[in-house]
Amino acid sequence: MNSAKNKKVVVLSGGVGAAKLLKGLTRVIDPTDITAIVNVADDTQLHGLHISPDLDTITYTLAGEIDTQKGWGLQNESWNAMEMLSRYGGVDWFQLGDRDLGTHMYRTHRIHQGASLSTIAEEIATGLNVKVNLLPASDDPINTIITTPKAGEIEFQEYFVRYQHNLEISNVNFKGVENAQPAPKVIDAIMTASAIIIAPSNPIVSIGPVLAVPGISEALDKRRELCVAVSGIINGKALKGPADRMLFDLGHDVSPLGIAKIYKKVASKIVIDTSDAQYIDEIENLGFGCLATDTVMTNEKKSETLCSTILSTFFPEVIK
Amino acid sequence: MNSAKNKKVVVLSGGVGAAKLLKGLTRVIDPTDITAIVNVADDTQLHGLHISPDLDTITYTLAGEIDTQKGWGLQNESWNAMEMLSRYGGVDWFQLGDRDLGTHMYRTHRIHQGASLSTIAEEIATGLNVKVNLLPASDDPINTIITTPKAGEIEFQEYFVRYQHNLEISNVNFKGVENAQPAPKVIDAIMTASAIIIAPSNPIVSIGPVLAVPGISEALDKRRELCVAVSGIINGKALKGPADRMLFDLGHDVSPLGIAKIYKKVASKIVIDTSDAQYIDEIENLGFGCLATDTVMTNEKKSETLCSTILSTFFPEVIK
Repeated sequence: MNSAKNKKVVVLSGGVGAAKLLKGLTRVIDPTDITAIVNVADDTQLHGLHISPDLDTITYTLAGEIDTQKGWGLQNESWNAMEMLSRYGGVDWFQLGDRDLGTHMYRTHRIHQGASLSTIAEEIATGLNVKVNLLPASDDPINTIITTPKAGEIEFQEYFVRYQHNLEISNVNFKGVENAQPAPKVIDAIMTASAIIIAPSNPIVSIGPVLAVPGISEALDKRRELCVAVSGIINGKALKGPADRMLFDLGHDVSPLGIAKIYKKVASKIVIDTSDAQYIDEIENLGFGCLATDTVMTNEKKSETLCSTILSTFFPEVIK
Repeated sequence: MNSAKNKKVVVLSGGVGAAKLLKGLTRVIDPTDITAIVNVADDTQLHGLHISPDLDTITYTLAGEIDTQKGWGLQNESWNAMEMLSRYGGVDWFQLGDRDLGTHMYRTHRIHQGASLSTIAEEIATGLNVKVNLLPASDDPINTIITTPKAGEIEFQEYFVRYQHNLEISNVNFKGVENAQPAPKVIDAIMTASAIIIAPSNPIVSIGPVLAVPGISEALDKRRELCVAVSGIINGKALKGPADRMLFDLGHDVSPLGIAKIYKKVASKIVIDTSDAQYIDEIENLGFGCLATDTVMTNEKKSETLCSTILSTFFPEVIK
């Protein structure tokens, strides 16, 4: 066996939670051995610019340039474009910092030139000296549509940013996903990984659209024994974002048990927070391996510890 | 006669020179009586954004927010988006300030919504409290293509900004102009004007595409007696930009006489700089009325004086 090949770790990723986990992972294994397969169904077009929120959050976090206060966007940001836009009465509910705009301008220019999202993600990562392999789940357009009793069908960013996710939901679908293909290298990354981690991202709207790309779930099926999901639900709540309410609205258990059930087909192991230890038996009864540990990544050291605990528990050959 | 109707002044406009003249004119007559018909053949798409350089230069100047040092862009500008873009190796030869980007984002968003350039120009002017009526020559796409022996056929902004207009040219054409229509209100503004001023803008690439829009020259023909052209060539040179070299390369006289010949069909009066007084006889022999005065608009007061001199000489009923 080629030991170099044994160290590859794939992380299915949404935004903030995945970014923190990936940052921790880069402190445990060689960043070039890490591949993030990132949700792009939240991508949106605003002002003619193509915005990939999850890819950007991950890239900025790994580059050490994320605004850690906000959890999104860049450090040392200015807001002069938005201020000007507001003077015209323009659409300003989606805040775009000036430095951040440089990223969207670059991506949009390259899209107009015919470059794929995955090529562009790699170029942006290279520009910011990020060594982790960042793959959009798909290069094809996928668009998360949220059905809400109050506001009807709305796009994800409208739900998430404009309405601050304060809306009951009745359905979620990923427009275009049935015709989407996994981006190049995605299936290969899954099939050659030594470990696959599902980040503690929103299972409905962050990991959901990744798994919905035809071919990705099927590949994960075959690698189920190597796949560990980290619960983003702790003590009945999502640490960040609307995952708890979305799970509730859609009839899932708002607990690590609910997460385990959602990932049953693709994961064989679940990582839950220590505060949820009461679920261990039930989760194991579903056939999962279960690790209870501190999953709250309040700083990089804690992210690192979480990652090294996951790897040393389930994949000791990867870490040593 | 309705005296209110007698005061309408139309200015055929490029960028910087026209902006200065318009600013001066607002100090002489009511801004709401002024209509600028503005070149949009320099418009370009960059990073997915629609940029209208001449409209923006005029709007920013009239709003009192132009960067007077550079002559384009906004005061108190920051460049954080461009800096970020450069880190990716993005296209950074066309400098876009952060505040300026807010304008392009607004315009692009409205275009995607289906709004016309003229509606958007009005909205942007309103946002910046500009009272002059700003009309793009056309709402349809027109694209100035410069043929150069060295670099082949290139778009105007590439010639102007990227190559800093340091290229010999052999031809200029306005792609799409044959199918372009005058924007709403353009023909009406010309037909109801009491005076029409051709700003001292580049006759080839600024005024040229305005005159090339089918219907505009024909309307001006009928109003020739009311049309005065201000020469942007002074003492054999363009005050700004490549007009002198372009005229030379294309076989025109690089003098007010050359300007007069170019505008012979649409204008009956020419304003030249005092330093070019030797051309008065030749210009008058072509059938023009000719005024020699100080045409160098180094500050707003001088712009105002130029405008009030032009109006009191040729259109005293407008000014009094």
